[in-house]
Amino acid sequence: MDTPAFQDFYPDSTAHCYGCGRLNDLGLGIRTRWEGEESVTRFRPRPEHTAIPGCVYGGLIASLVDCHCTGTAAAAMDRQAGRAMGSAPAIRFVTASLQVDYLRPTPIDCELEIRGRVLEIKGRRVTVEATVLADGVATARGRVVAAQLPEAFGAP
Amino acid sequence: MDTPAFQDFYPDSTAHCYGCGRLNDLGLGIRTRWEGEESVTRFRPRPEHTAIPGCVYGGLIASLVDCHCTGTAAAAMDRQAGRAMGSAPAIRFVTASLQVDYLRPTPIDCELEIRGRVLEIKGRRVTVEATVLADGVATARGRVVAAQLPEAFGAP
Repeated sequence: MDTPAFQDFYPDSTAHCYGCGRLNDLGLGIRTRWEGEESVTRFRPRPEHTAIPGCVYGGLIASLVDCHCTGTAAAAMDRQAGRAMGSAPAIRFVTASLQVDYLRPTPIDCELEIRGRVLEIKGRRVTVEATVLADGVATARGRVVAAQLPEAFGAP
Repeated sequence: MDTPAFQDFYPDSTAHCYGCGRLNDLGLGIRTRWEGEESVTRFRPRPEHTAIPGCVYGGLIASLVDCHCTGTAAAAMDRQAGRAMGSAPAIRFVTASLQVDYLRPTPIDCELEIRGRVLEIKGRRVTVEATVLADGVATARGRVVAAQLPEAFGAP
């Protein structure tokens, strides 16, 4: 499981995101990889990430979906272009829109799994859907429209 | 400006939320008040809340919208019922769905203002829309459908 994650290839200039930047020591450190056609993030909430006792607060779920999906968008664009991840200039995305449906409470005391799937690549926009699972049970579903940044942001 | 916020009235049993719980020392401490028909939260991002340098990461925006809107839902339900906030049992909401449209980058070096408006109260569901402003410029728009928790959660 220690293969490089999408986020390991982000150039230093865009690797400070609180959600997924490897250069943000205080951040969440979200890391995402392909497993076949799906992108997968595994994340263990911290005790302070609570909402009502025993459950994860909604903003963390939204953050996981967000960074998972923008990372997946970049990886999908590289894959479609036949580029190795980490090729210069790096392809980076920001979020145009985020939708999360909370299906049931997400327990805080287990590792969460976020599984994503690319729905559409259209020009510089990629739509990704993601499901958040706790012990294999879907607790939230999300959808992100990600917009590709100008290439200047992908410089090392 | 030091009037009590909606979140000050949450009973201890539901005041640990990372986004808005006054009993969560590591959390964001989101606090919301009425200003006429609008609900208003003011929040200064921390330096680590970055996305691309100089801008706030999307998950923080989503968290602000989320807790701002669930707090507004509780306050609106109290107001509609002619109840003083803090009346027992407390009315508390969780998020059923969250939608955020990111209009432009949100600068990290200023106080953000989130302004909300109740769109609908229907049974135990309240729909709230919110705009995130930085120096008076709208940078994101959100909408939350909040679902009222069973009264047992509102016990002190």
